[in-house]
Amino acid sequence: MSPTWVPVPDHSEFPLHSLPFGVIDPGDGARIVVAIGDHALDMRALAGAGLLDVEPGVAPALSSNDLNAYLSLGREAWGAVRGVITGLLMTGEAEIRDAGALLDPVEAVHLLPFVPGDFVDGYSSLEHATTMGRILRPEGEPLLPNWRHMPVAYRGTPSTVMVSGSPVRRPRGQVLGPDGMPEHRETAALDFELEVGFVVGPGNGIGRPIDIDDTADHIFGVVLVNDWSARDFQKWEGRPLGPNIAKSFATSVSPWVIPLDALTTAMIPSRPQSPQPLEYLRPSGDWGLDLDLGVDLGTAASAPMVVSRTSMRGVYWTFAQQLAHLTVNGAALRPGDLISSGTISGKAAGSKGCLIEATLDGARPITLPSGETRSYLEDGDTVVLRGSAPAAGIGLGEVVGTVLPAHD
Amino acid sequence: MSPTWVPVPDHSEFPLHSLPFGVIDPGDGARIVVAIGDHALDMRALAGAGLLDVEPGVAPALSSNDLNAYLSLGREAWGAVRGVITGLLMTGEAEIRDAGALLDPVEAVHLLPFVPGDFVDGYSSLEHATTMGRILRPEGEPLLPNWRHMPVAYRGTPSTVMVSGSPVRRPRGQVLGPDGMPEHRETAALDFELEVGFVVGPGNGIGRPIDIDDTADHIFGVVLVNDWSARDFQKWEGRPLGPNIAKSFATSVSPWVIPLDALTTAMIPSRPQSPQPLEYLRPSGDWGLDLDLGVDLGTAASAPMVVSRTSMRGVYWTFAQQLAHLTVNGAALRPGDLISSGTISGKAAGSKGCLIEATLDGARPITLPSGETRSYLEDGDTVVLRGSAPAAGIGLGEVVGTVLPAHD
Repeated sequence: MSPTWVPVPDHSEFPLHSLPFGVIDPGDGARIVVAIGDHALDMRALAGAGLLDVEPGVAPALSSNDLNAYLSLGREAWGAVRGVITGLLMTGEAEIRDAGALLDPVEAVHLLPFVPGDFVDGYSSLEHATTMGRILRPEGEPLLPNWRHMPVAYRGTPSTVMVSGSPVRRPRGQVLGPDGMPEHRETAALDFELEVGFVVGPGNGIGRPIDIDDTADHIFGVVLVNDWSARDFQKWEGRPLGPNIAKSFATSVSPWVIPLDALTTAMIPSRPQSPQPLEYLRPSGDWGLDLDLGVDLGTAASAPMVVSRTSMRGVYWTFAQQLAHLTVNGAALRPGDLISSGTISGKAAGSKGCLIEATLDGARPITLPSGETRSYLEDGDTVVLRGSAPAAGIGLGEVVGTVLPAHD
Repeated sequence: MSPTWVPVPDHSEFPLHSLPFGVIDPGDGARIVVAIGDHALDMRALAGAGLLDVEPGVAPALSSNDLNAYLSLGREAWGAVRGVITGLLMTGEAEIRDAGALLDPVEAVHLLPFVPGDFVDGYSSLEHATTMGRILRPEGEPLLPNWRHMPVAYRGTPSTVMVSGSPVRRPRGQVLGPDGMPEHRETAALDFELEVGFVVGPGNGIGRPIDIDDTADHIFGVVLVNDWSARDFQKWEGRPLGPNIAKSFATSVSPWVIPLDALTTAMIPSRPQSPQPLEYLRPSGDWGLDLDLGVDLGTAASAPMVVSRTSMRGVYWTFAQQLAHLTVNGAALRPGDLISSGTISGKAAGSKGCLIEATLDGARPITLPSGETRSYLEDGDTVVLRGSAPAAGIGLGEVVGTVLPAHD
């Protein structure tokens, strides 16, 4: 009963109503593709056949090697392209086959679909911020006074945003040793962070804040994000300027950007906020996201095991609020920028989005099917983040990363 | 007695032995130029005349609209170009005139000479870090325990790095009001920060730290940096993730990148460090920089007045140490990245690199010649950062910025 002539497996993550964008190299060069079931539509081939002449700039933008030019075109263009592709997938078999645009992407190499000029990572989960406060500042209130008033965030490292599948080299850095003296060594507390990020569309000029009710015009779509972290570096370096080498070595994103247009039925009222935030942080629409999220951990000796199942439903600060806050001072966002939620954790055991929470900084290691235990990641471990939007009937794909040993 | 045929005024900031690089648009498009006295050499014109065929890739890189491609070529290429340009300026009048390459840049618009993919700002001045600690954390030790062990830094906002002359719009943001409740309003504590930054050359691959004794291969040159800051935002947002909207609205840099090759006689032993840092932070050469620095402040009613005179000589953490630390974990640096010192302050009154220090957060306002006082910057104020390397007999140019009122 598929409405498209492309064979789409039952329960595919990428049915006709998703149409996520990625960039693959099937062996003869990078190109932008749209996923449909297990296949991919080659945008350059469609453009070459004159099938994307829906709005000025669309065909050249989608003939590029990354999404940035397309992201700059904005919602109307995105909507027009979505309409055209939907139509071709319903009734355009001849045109697509003539254009040679239907690819089997199984063997293709995924590339980073967008090039972030800026990367900002938030701290939007109340449960995560509270647990982190308890672990890192046991003497004080777990939640700092600003947390309920603004979506606190730090600026990350655009140069090390990488696509799923990229291995992550265990970093060396500086940690405080047991004798109270710093040491230069490999991290002994390598962690993942389960996050959901959004990819910025047209963006704003310097000095021009984005009103919270205009934020939907600036969000193209979402990706899963693994903000790899070295907790021992983080504890030592973090004051007063925040994390730097604890996180700058790697951030992995899922290969498919899921358009916000595919998630409309997953948008729900956001979590009630108390106290009510300032007016510039009060959107009129629904910005909660009903996404199921999970983390699998595998080792050389142990098949992947679910170590976390959680949801984005209860996340406190929304994408709209993050975007309004980041630009309230006139800071610019540009097409392809990546803004992430920060770690998403639930209340229950088994719903934590990182190991420092799940193991209470190693106090309660996780036991794997092989009998191995993990306080933090070891070399050879593979982390898989997964996500789906059940109400929308689509998947978010996954972010996979395997830990390589530190260089000699 | 000028060794060049180009007329260079006495005491010019840009004599033959400087040769700083910039990008200007004289009205017919951006091009890379090298300053000589009050003139500029058009690199695209030289390349077009076949005068830059010294190393593969040089001529196309210097025919570009920014320095990034040239920065990627590395020290040997930079040295070869320096040799060629020096030769042309000594004995190549005919060739340069035939190429139409000598410009009078007075009327030209300066553009940002490099495009930073990442921007990192340090905290390298002991005096600045100590005073800031006293002001922001009066209850505790002014210097946090990590400060003497690593060049602490935060990741900034590449999208709002701008060239000198760009106006700076007073930002709105979130501050903690007198009643203990947050407010959305214009900053009442807009500050400048006097800094010196370096521009990254070839950079490193992900996972490949740069050894501290190889850092000179990765530093093309230096610029003056004004890291504009909203102190009221910073106090409220800063924990636990560091500054974000307090600084993301604007960072200004001087228009000419002074090659490290022009500063060899300004490199001096760096300030002794106690305790000795870890080995990865111990360079074998001299990385102190003998630079005189200053800040002028002018208002609508008051001519520019010197509000600070200081020096980079006493700065605690060096560029080499910053570069080694930033890559110790395998984080990548790319051509054109900007790494800055953080605010440079001396001990004495009148040697502070920002107003929060100079006025003790407004407790001791500065009095200007007009009789006006300033705790922080007001609309219409103009800040000029200046620098020179007296031992090298060259100037660093200046960074100018005027404060515009907030948008309605």
